[in-house]
Amino acid sequence: MSSNASQLERLTFFSDAVFAIAITLLIIEVHVPHLETRDDGAYLQALQALQPSFMGFALSFLVIGALWVAHHRVFGMLVDYSASVMWPNMLLLMTVAFMPFATALMSSNPMARVPELVYAGTLLAAGLLQWRVFAVALRPPFVRADLAPDHVAATRWRALGLPAAAALSLLAAWFAPGWNNLLLLTIPLFVRLFYALGLRRTQRLQPVLAES
Amino acid sequence: MSSNASQLERLTFFSDAVFAIAITLLIIEVHVPHLETRDDGAYLQALQALQPSFMGFALSFLVIGALWVAHHRVFGMLVDYSASVMWPNMLLLMTVAFMPFATALMSSNPMARVPELVYAGTLLAAGLLQWRVFAVALRPPFVRADLAPDHVAATRWRALGLPAAAALSLLAAWFAPGWNNLLLLTIPLFVRLFYALGLRRTQRLQPVLAES
Amino acid sequence: MSSNASQLERLTFFSDAVFAIAITLLIIEVHVPHLETRDDGAYLQALQALQPSFMGFALSFLVIGALWVAHHRVFGMLVDYSASVMWPNMLLLMTVAFMPFATALMSSNPMARVPELVYAGTLLAAGLLQWRVFAVALRPPFVRADLAPDHVAATRWRALGLPAAAALSLLAAWFAPGWNNLLLLTIPLFVRLFYALGLRRTQRLQPVLAES
Amino acid sequence: MSSNASQLERLTFFSDAVFAIAITLLIIEVHVPHLETRDDGAYLQALQALQPSFMGFALSFLVIGALWVAHHRVFGMLVDYSASVMWPNMLLLMTVAFMPFATALMSSNPMARVPELVYAGTLLAAGLLQWRVFAVALRPPFVRADLAPDHVAATRWRALGLPAAAALSLLAAWFAPGWNNLLLLTIPLFVRLFYALGLRRTQRLQPVLAES
Repeated sequence: MSSNASQLERLTFFSDAVFAIAITLLIIEVHVPHLETRDDGAYLQALQALQPSFMGFALSFLVIGALWVAHHRVFGMLVDYSASVMWPNMLLLMTVAFMPFATALMSSNPMARVPELVYAGTLLAAGLLQWRVFAVALRPPFVRADLAPDHVAATRWRALGLPAAAALSLLAAWFAPGWNNLLLLTIPLFVRLFYALGLRRTQRLQPVLAES
Repeated sequence: MSSNASQLERLTFFSDAVFAIAITLLIIEVHVPHLETRDDGAYLQALQALQPSFMGFALSFLVIGALWVAHHRVFGMLVDYSASVMWPNMLLLMTVAFMPFATALMSSNPMARVPELVYAGTLLAAGLLQWRVFAVALRPPFVRADLAPDHVAATRWRALGLPAAAALSLLAAWFAPGWNNLLLLTIPLFVRLFYALGLRRTQRLQPVLAES
Repeated sequence: MSSNASQLERLTFFSDAVFAIAITLLIIEVHVPHLETRDDGAYLQALQALQPSFMGFALSFLVIGALWVAHHRVFGMLVDYSASVMWPNMLLLMTVAFMPFATALMSSNPMARVPELVYAGTLLAAGLLQWRVFAVALRPPFVRADLAPDHVAATRWRALGLPAAAALSLLAAWFAPGWNNLLLLTIPLFVRLFYALGLRRTQRLQPVLAES
Repeated sequence: MSSNASQLERLTFFSDAVFAIAITLLIIEVHVPHLETRDDGAYLQALQALQPSFMGFALSFLVIGALWVAHHRVFGMLVDYSASVMWPNMLLLMTVAFMPFATALMSSNPMARVPELVYAGTLLAAGLLQWRVFAVALRPPFVRADLAPDHVAATRWRALGLPAAAALSLLAAWFAPGWNNLLLLTIPLFVRLFYALGLRRTQRLQPVLAES
């Protein structure tokens, strides 16, 4: 058990490192203006032109941050892991590592449809992979014994919040590229909604399960 | 308790990784001169031209280093954490991740007012967020039982040192852009001052608290 | 023993960090197109032109991921390490750190022979070094006592899978540059084949060893 | 004690992360050639032109690797740490983080004197700071009780090996820029020499100390 715990810790560690590197690399894609003047107006204009990059940086920082917080929460519920979590987790990390590119593509070409579709599509892929990782990870033998089963089940459901919001954003990107990102503000709502749905559904099923 | 400790460790770990990446990425923004000569004078001139970049690298390395040392000290005082520390900490990490940009903006445009304001403003934001994180983290149920309460309270106060120095630097950037960074040398003084103030204030209040 | 375990952990940790950084840096070499239009067709064309970069990113992510998964598996079988594992492991990390360059060289110059040879050669070097690291690491005093000796021996054999596939890919790069990468799809087959070979060979030898 | 151990672990961790990032960032400074041909000769020529960059990458990888191996060895001898190790260690990490710049400066301008001086000077600074960190860290109350005192003392001496070789290389850079790096091959010799010197000196002093 102890060696499984240490292997789980290392998997967690590697994932954390990729999250941390991707989130910090976001700033590299914001190009530093180099002006040959000391005129305040010129700098304000240059920073103004970078506004889409700043917004992309902040948005992606929060999104990768939220992915990490969820990963942190779920892996904290485990005492062991199935080998079948390894590759879905690796693919999740691949989408996370792709985020600096998707962010820079969107920020360098503001309000253009294809970049917005690529960005929302990356989020959708990350969300679906995260949902898959959590579904595989949160299975009975691997979960801490002291956790309520309905909380575990609802945590699996809650992972549908991000892909739901990302799917909406993807659709909206077609009609209102750029503005569609506002829909990502609904992520916290969707997450709570799916958690509540999962909780209710499990609690309705539990008596049935207990009887059988 | 043990699983909380491991979750705290992972939060600490993720934060450490972002600090470490941001501090190491600083050097990427220093552009390597490529000369087609072997003349010593040409190289000395090229390095001379990079002096603001070297100073920005060193300054930001020390500032991020100080932020990390403080984070390391405070999180070492904890045995558990409140979920409400998660997002202020994430925003603190966002300002840390933003530092390579702010540094390069300042270094590429030496003595210009707007870049200096952006740099000092980033430090001020980082300082205030750090103060907030520490205030949320250093609450009774989460702090190690063996620590003196007045030391804990004074550690909360001490976090006001960086934002105070950064606020001064921000003001001075308006009047003497570039030179204002010298005020950051006062950070160690302010930190000690606020620690002493916090200690004295807590010790004056303690008898009152003990009586009540 | 405990301090050896912590030294092993730190070696593992450092290796994990290099794997994680190299895998995440891959995306930096994919250059973000910056178009002055909102025309969908122009963006699709620009992304089309980046297809070799996307494929290189995905391929190298999976290869470095597989190297890490193997490293994770083998180091999880250890309780201690020999000092002689240190430098072969450092050289393995050097080839891993070189992967972003080899990937970008191949992706920026698709279907060219020399870049494909460099890429396959880097993989071959990484595979041989990994095999060497595992052969040194998986020796009796360092391996967990609860592991079956034939599984340990077969795990050493299994590390021949990657260099075998990389050698094939290197050969094929000469005749069909670009297409040779398809041979890397055989890595999972080779890995299983060598594991089975190693298992069979060890089991045939074991009675002899037990008698002696 | 346990919380000191965990604080020491986190300091070690942060240091490891900076070492790992700096060592992996080295490859970013090797610029990927992008040719519009499939002619083998053109690629071989382009790679030939990158030879100084490859050699700089390999040299700095080995040097940072050696710095990390030494750091790993010495911190593995500790059970606790003095607060006064914090800032010398941070300055050591600053020189490590500076290495990608120094390497690229040297590689982009091969055989030029000033870049070689900068590179050798960076190594000298790193070596002296490492020696300082180890001297502060390896003091009685912080060192594991089971270690022989003369081995601890000799480990402090051994840290003089890198700065000695770097000082020689710095001198030689003036007269034979480029070739001076060959002197870095003497690092392993110097390290062993200083270790032996330290061992002999401590063993000669020990009877005296034991009597007093």
